[in-house]
Amino acid sequence: MLASPLTPDSTLPVVVTTGEPAGIGPEIMLMLAAQGRLPVDTVAVGDPDMLRQRAAVLGLNITVVECSPGEMPQGTGTNVLPVWPVALKATAMPGVLNPANASYVLATLTVAVEACKLGRASAMVTAPLHKGVIIEGGHPEFTGHTEWLRDACGVDDVVMMLATDAALHASSPSWQGSGDLRVALVTTHLPLRNVADAITYDRVMRISRLLAADLQRQFGIAKPRIAVCGLNPHAGEDGHLGREELDIIIPALDALRSEGMDIHGPLPADTLFTPRHLAGVDAVLAMYHDQGLAVLKYAGFGQAANITLGLALVRTSVDHGTALDLAGKGVADPGSLKVAIDLARRLATQRLSAEV
Amino acid sequence: MLASPLTPDSTLPVVVTTGEPAGIGPEIMLMLAAQGRLPVDTVAVGDPDMLRQRAAVLGLNITVVECSPGEMPQGTGTNVLPVWPVALKATAMPGVLNPANASYVLATLTVAVEACKLGRASAMVTAPLHKGVIIEGGHPEFTGHTEWLRDACGVDDVVMMLATDAALHASSPSWQGSGDLRVALVTTHLPLRNVADAITYDRVMRISRLLAADLQRQFGIAKPRIAVCGLNPHAGEDGHLGREELDIIIPALDALRSEGMDIHGPLPADTLFTPRHLAGVDAVLAMYHDQGLAVLKYAGFGQAANITLGLALVRTSVDHGTALDLAGKGVADPGSLKVAIDLARRLATQRLSAEV
Repeated sequence: MLASPLTPDSTLPVVVTTGEPAGIGPEIMLMLAAQGRLPVDTVAVGDPDMLRQRAAVLGLNITVVECSPGEMPQGTGTNVLPVWPVALKATAMPGVLNPANASYVLATLTVAVEACKLGRASAMVTAPLHKGVIIEGGHPEFTGHTEWLRDACGVDDVVMMLATDAALHASSPSWQGSGDLRVALVTTHLPLRNVADAITYDRVMRISRLLAADLQRQFGIAKPRIAVCGLNPHAGEDGHLGREELDIIIPALDALRSEGMDIHGPLPADTLFTPRHLAGVDAVLAMYHDQGLAVLKYAGFGQAANITLGLALVRTSVDHGTALDLAGKGVADPGSLKVAIDLARRLATQRLSAEV
Repeated sequence: MLASPLTPDSTLPVVVTTGEPAGIGPEIMLMLAAQGRLPVDTVAVGDPDMLRQRAAVLGLNITVVECSPGEMPQGTGTNVLPVWPVALKATAMPGVLNPANASYVLATLTVAVEACKLGRASAMVTAPLHKGVIIEGGHPEFTGHTEWLRDACGVDDVVMMLATDAALHASSPSWQGSGDLRVALVTTHLPLRNVADAITYDRVMRISRLLAADLQRQFGIAKPRIAVCGLNPHAGEDGHLGREELDIIIPALDALRSEGMDIHGPLPADTLFTPRHLAGVDAVLAMYHDQGLAVLKYAGFGQAANITLGLALVRTSVDHGTALDLAGKGVADPGSLKVAIDLARRLATQRLSAEV
């Protein structure tokens, strides 16, 4: 139902945008390269001189090799980072945001999306950006990576899903108690006071269908089992703690089950994430950001990745922010970026096989 | 600052209300007795005949011994459950709620509170009740155990805190990465759409002070370190995702720090629960129910307990509901009740020593 017009090829590069230049994005990419942990056919997008300067600051012996977007340098080896260049607008200092570079950050995203659309990349991975400085830099409409990609790809809805490392493998089995969790969100980056009004029958239906479809298409799960959180504490407790479950969520899930979906709930969020309820579940659908992601990141111990479902391209992301206080110090943990890159490659392969 | 007018004695009984008679409360108490896991000087409050019938249904060889509230039978041994009797209003069938028994459930709470107030019990523990059937049974003002106890004890505010088993020991060290978590809540049982308006400067101040005071008094932590969640995703991201952090939470925490409190945040809830931020933290203060309790119960694996802070008595509770679908089947897990009973005894002892 989401068949792509593209012809992804899993041997094509995975392209990684290095994100906010004042944050840890550039250096976690450099650290992976220096540690020999970057898979071949991985290419960065960013300012080559900034990357060289950051490598020098960190004492990393990395050769940054520029190549045209869509191309890969021949014969690259260890300690080489291929880069599709995008020029900074202003010098970037670690830890110091500069709104002048907002359009630079967005330009790196455009390069990555276009490469995927044109069949020059198999998947894209994003290092963190800083929403506030993008807005201050003249993009007041910007609400986040995920929403920007939705618009850039011309779809009405996308689904933000995070997964712990143990749950990232395509076709991995459903929850088996070992810290493997996948959590998708009905709403994403909204002030908490706006969440309840954003939970509508249509939205629950659309997000659930996108989630189920991409668990099949991208993760190879033939009949995904989804457990859904209520919006209110105790899932509203029969209307005593809010009516959205009775008026919106239960009717939506009933309709989805009548379509044949294996979807359960709404369950109280504070008991759903226990072995009794997680057993056999392929993904949890939470109603809002902190309801689902606090537990996911606790379970993932900082080694989770973010996947955008519903796009015609494969996109994964780190599960953390720009960490300005750590930038330029070489102490950031590149673990989530490694997980996101490996996942992007696997999803591209899985998706290709699903579409053949 | 919360010195009790009472003279608690840790050799006095710990009294356990058996809760909603159609739920699993009566049977998890009977199961602990049958397994020899009830500490001596533990007494149940409930209908003795109902408890005998439930024991028979479950095939448990338990002698239910009635004694006057405040008294303990002499020479009780294994397979004996002492009970302070309260008579049901109507026959209770496992799994079948009956509003006629709402006043019975509340009467068991009154017996327990009075015993603590009169110095006949050292602490109280509550098995789950069902809020909806209490309301339907003629108590429309009822919003939960915790709030009922607040009113019964004549205090303005209480704090609901949950802790995993590893974090329950009085004087246990701060977070060390082994699944030990304590999570307290600024708001408890509110529909999600009402949460943002309930987060006020005064409320954050009062709840933080109560939390710090009872971590000292009940847990014996000399200078507790508290980490506070933001209300909005990403803690509002400098106002781009909500202004409550800037307008309310940050000023409140600044004021508390100026009083000498070791309190940190507001931090994004989805990154706070990771080792980097939890290190050295004695308790997390979440703004609302599902923000804090989903991760707590995941970490506790169903073996957490609930503690009410700010009362002049010691009260703990299970971390689960009535589980009507499991009632009468003998398959419920009494682990959380065991944790809650053991914790109540420890807190009573700790508090006594703190007040001598």
